[in-house]
Amino acid sequence: MAQGTNGGLALTLEFVFKDVVRIYDTDAQGIAHYASYYRFFTNTIERFMKDKVGIPYPNVNDELWFVIVETHAEYKRPLRVGDVITVTISPQRLSEKVIRFQFQILKEGEVTTTGYVDQVAINPKIWKAVNIPEEILKRILNL
Amino acid sequence: MAQGTNGGLALTLEFVFKDVVRIYDTDAQGIAHYASYYRFFTNTIERFMKDKVGIPYPNVNDELWFVIVETHAEYKRPLRVGDVITVTISPQRLSEKVIRFQFQILKEGEVTTTGYVDQVAINPKIWKAVNIPEEILKRILNL
Amino acid sequence: MAQGTNGGLALTLEFVFKDVVRIYDTDAQGIAHYASYYRFFTNTIERFMKDKVGIPYPNVNDELWFVIVETHAEYKRPLRVGDVITVTISPQRLSEKVIRFQFQILKEGEVTTTGYVDQVAINPKIWKAVNIPEEILKRILNL
Amino acid sequence: MAQGTNGGLALTLEFVFKDVVRIYDTDAQGIAHYASYYRFFTNTIERFMKDKVGIPYPNVNDELWFVIVETHAEYKRPLRVGDVITVTISPQRLSEKVIRFQFQILKEGEVTTTGYVDQVAINPKIWKAVNIPEEILKRILNL
Repeated sequence: MAQGTNGGLALTLEFVFKDVVRIYDTDAQGIAHYASYYRFFTNTIERFMKDKVGIPYPNVNDELWFVIVETHAEYKRPLRVGDVITVTISPQRLSEKVIRFQFQILKEGEVTTTGYVDQVAINPKIWKAVNIPEEILKRILNL
Repeated sequence: MAQGTNGGLALTLEFVFKDVVRIYDTDAQGIAHYASYYRFFTNTIERFMKDKVGIPYPNVNDELWFVIVETHAEYKRPLRVGDVITVTISPQRLSEKVIRFQFQILKEGEVTTTGYVDQVAINPKIWKAVNIPEEILKRILNL
Repeated sequence: MAQGTNGGLALTLEFVFKDVVRIYDTDAQGIAHYASYYRFFTNTIERFMKDKVGIPYPNVNDELWFVIVETHAEYKRPLRVGDVITVTISPQRLSEKVIRFQFQILKEGEVTTTGYVDQVAINPKIWKAVNIPEEILKRILNL
Repeated sequence: MAQGTNGGLALTLEFVFKDVVRIYDTDAQGIAHYASYYRFFTNTIERFMKDKVGIPYPNVNDELWFVIVETHAEYKRPLRVGDVITVTISPQRLSEKVIRFQFQILKEGEVTTTGYVDQVAINPKIWKAVNIPEEILKRILNL
């Protein structure tokens, strides 16, 4: 796990995504609603997949989709409307079929949020898990 | 228009939907976010279609979907988290293919919001507009 | 943990919430979007707090709010538009200030999703964690 | 109206916003959900207000907020996940207190969606409509 985390941190430095907290991300507590953070995570994966891996996300093609199987987030400091945030993404191979994306959200250099999103590769025609194609996996893991 | 409104009001009295403004419906202005109202409208159509018309919504079957083509809302008074609201729905036939649902949202007897959602019947296999089946149209219009 | 789970299951049998997967909960994969489940969780907490504890949620009053600090979900089987779901909720005391709500979502008797939402009590005027008032905590924990 | 539209079109050419349809914008019909378009509209206003007017949006300061009072959208062609869209924005002065933003969403040069969002300036401390400050109004209208 420590090694995986190191690998993740190394990659983290290579891909960051800038986003902004918009009014619809917030709620009547005056802060970003907890489910909005998953939107920030999704935005970051989508951009990572397009820019670094060169594939559409999450529906790569008619025989390959990424489907979410687990999500987690810890909210350390609140975000507010207008906040400019930096999201770092660290992919980890959990199995031949499952990828974990770990995230940190930073505001003015401080970590406000951490979390991960696990996704399994499936063939949507039969709705069964499949191995992630070798060349896609390599690009995701920056190998 | 006055007639249509009268007809609408008559029907309105027959179908109302109770909902509650939840925290995720609100934003940092402390009031319900303007796009959340379309969630209230959708909830009401879905329940109307299930209870009054007896069909799933918006995807009725493999050859009949209702697809939104126009939406409108006017926000007269703000709603806040925890508000219990009553939504009235009034269907109108715009053409053989298009139905308008008019809405009023009331809180403690006062109208807070009005709006409408127009939807066209399509065959999703060919993604083309089709006539709304006679028996479904009759039940929607309470004929 | 086993004991806590047993306690949770015992309580689970006492409070369940029925919901329906609506079109806006789904995405282009044809299934409920992963962040929508947090909406189902929130709906269930809100109803539990109103019906069992007798307080508004998450903003109880000017000096007591519940703020989310951690969320987790595992998606075992997909949900689709129109699915009628049952959500069970099991509160656990994590500390004097933090409550965990554990959830199971069931469809036709089968568990489709599990997860939890942790929330800290704060005084919004000073934005600091506070002890959950004794009488509220007792009602949450069904003591 | 024709004049207003011309004025709008003139300004339209000056400010456009690029966005992408993400998986959470879509629903089980395989297309962007109708309420997601209001997210695209909000994104565009927010960026316009930041880049062209130089103010945060919608909460400008403690005494000036923009609150939505009317929304409208017409959906001419569907959008799908991954679509890259261009949103044009055209501000119009409706009164001393109310601004309309008209939108066009284009995909590959074709208009897919039109709509508008009307917003009133209020003082949130008293929750009353106020005149939009002269210098802000001028920058919004590009005068």
